Amino acid sequence: MLLYYLDLAGVAVFAVSGVLAARDRDLDLLGVLVVAAITAIGGGTLRDLLLDRHPIFWITDTWYLVVILAATIATVLYLRLRQPPGISLQVADAFGLGLFALSGAQYAEAANSSPLIVVLMGTMTGVTGGVIRDVITAKVPLILRQEIYATAAIAGVLAYLGMKQLGVPESYAFPGGILVVVGIRLVAIRWGLHLPVVHKP
Amino acid sequence: MLLYYLDLAGVAVFAVSGVLAARDRDLDLLGVLVVAAITAIGGGTLRDLLLDRHPIFWITDTWYLVVILAATIATVLYLRLRQPPGISLQVADAFGLGLFALSGAQYAEAANSSPLIVVLMGTMTGVTGGVIRDVITAKVPLILRQEIYATAAIAGVLAYLGMKQLGVPESYAFPGGILVVVGIRLVAIRWGLHLPVVHKP
Amino acid sequence: MLLYYLDLAGVAVFAVSGVLAARDRDLDLLGVLVVAAITAIGGGTLRDLLLDRHPIFWITDTWYLVVILAATIATVLYLRLRQPPGISLQVADAFGLGLFALSGAQYAEAANSSPLIVVLMGTMTGVTGGVIRDVITAKVPLILRQEIYATAAIAGVLAYLGMKQLGVPESYAFPGGILVVVGIRLVAIRWGLHLPVVHKP
Repeated sequence: MLLYYLDLAGVAVFAVSGVLAARDRDLDLLGVLVVAAITAIGGGTLRDLLLDRHPIFWITDTWYLVVILAATIATVLYLRLRQPPGISLQVADAFGLGLFALSGAQYAEAANSSPLIVVLMGTMTGVTGGVIRDVITAKVPLILRQEIYATAAIAGVLAYLGMKQLGVPESYAFPGGILVVVGIRLVAIRWGLHLPVVHKP
Repeated sequence: MLLYYLDLAGVAVFAVSGVLAARDRDLDLLGVLVVAAITAIGGGTLRDLLLDRHPIFWITDTWYLVVILAATIATVLYLRLRQPPGISLQVADAFGLGLFALSGAQYAEAANSSPLIVVLMGTMTGVTGGVIRDVITAKVPLILRQEIYATAAIAGVLAYLGMKQLGVPESYAFPGGILVVVGIRLVAIRWGLHLPVVHKP
Repeated sequence: MLLYYLDLAGVAVFAVSGVLAARDRDLDLLGVLVVAAITAIGGGTLRDLLLDRHPIFWITDTWYLVVILAATIATVLYLRLRQPPGISLQVADAFGLGLFALSGAQYAEAANSSPLIVVLMGTMTGVTGGVIRDVITAKVPLILRQEIYATAAIAGVLAYLGMKQLGVPESYAFPGGILVVVGIRLVAIRWGLHLPVVHKP
């Protein structure tokens, strides 16, 4: 049940990030809605396809789409009133990344995957929404920016697995993992932190 | 049965649009064929994956691939004779958009989805082929241009659902919905129409 | 069993190609690993999704991910010592293309697909990893370069089918097909060969 509400929250913040990415492109309202919807359901859809979970989470439950619709309209209205700071997109993306990374990890666990694969599955679920958003709005994917990005998702899933190993109940370890992802991303965005990069000599 | 022929038609026009998009890229004939094939089967493949319909429509029925092959060769030969006007790509795309939007909607209905989700599923099925084509040929996706695009798909599916609600038999409402999509797109392309856009102040 | 080891080999060389593509982007080590992993499993994942083969090959078998991890670390360390020639990426990609094209073809055969569809399935499986890599690292996809690319995959699958038709046992025809793909690509890269292109007059 908690997982369901967290999925709804992830869908909402990714929809907001989709609107923020789309507004530079002069789309009409329904075009913005389509970009927001694809961004919002992208990660979870990949998760369900890979784990053969059918029906896909949003196909029989209308609430996801209602939440996307509401988040999109609210964001568009807000944008008419004031201009949010430039990092709003990255902040909304950070929450979506955290929520979907942990939900992807948890579903992979349910499929009896090994820890390594739980980490990969969580990371892929988390980054997919943002990558699709950035590709269809023709932006340089956030995942390619220097600040800690995929690393935050990996750290969050590892923290979740570690806490469970130490006996922390799942109902704490799960939101704990999300907070690790969001916290690392926000700190990295705020202070422009990045790990040593692998670059051309 | 009608749905089958309309799927074949959608595959054909998206293949044509794939060739038109690929020709700016100086690919060899087989490269063009691969781009055309991926464009043509992209939308329907996503539809079948999301709805867990297996085997995927083109995997056991060779006719789809024969149609793609024929449409590709015919288009390549035609291009050697004369230069079609610049909007040919968008016109072929309009027909593919309409055919796949309605077929996606109809299959979603068969999966007992709510009307909102039928609209989203139709829109995603319709726009996917074009988005993949534009991404792999490194063009700005048509969906990001200002003219009414995703909106046309949404309007066509809504028209289809509305007609059925009013008692119009499905065999009329289905082609009616396709005509709405294609009509809106062609009018929007011809006169450069667009809805009010959501833009940066 | 042989197919399993060849899949592992394909995963390894695509991971190397992912690292080589990612290094121009100044990612941190874990970012590079995520790009390498997505590149390495992309083609096979699409193959399994399209053919409804579950669980997806890497979800229950940790070896794939261990191989990706090892190939990524080895490549990163090697890059600190010396600068490989500019075509290394294309060479690694050629081996991945060949291995996955033939494995995609063979699984499509097992699903009773017709020869035309076996060729398309092989080609799509082969090119997908590279296309995803090039899209997420924001490069012009190799498939759009002039040298023989998709054509090499098609030729390799046709050679495989032809050899089997002539009575060559599968255990020879399969590596034979891979060699055809890799050979054509390496020759095309080395001497800049390309077929006549379809271009704007």
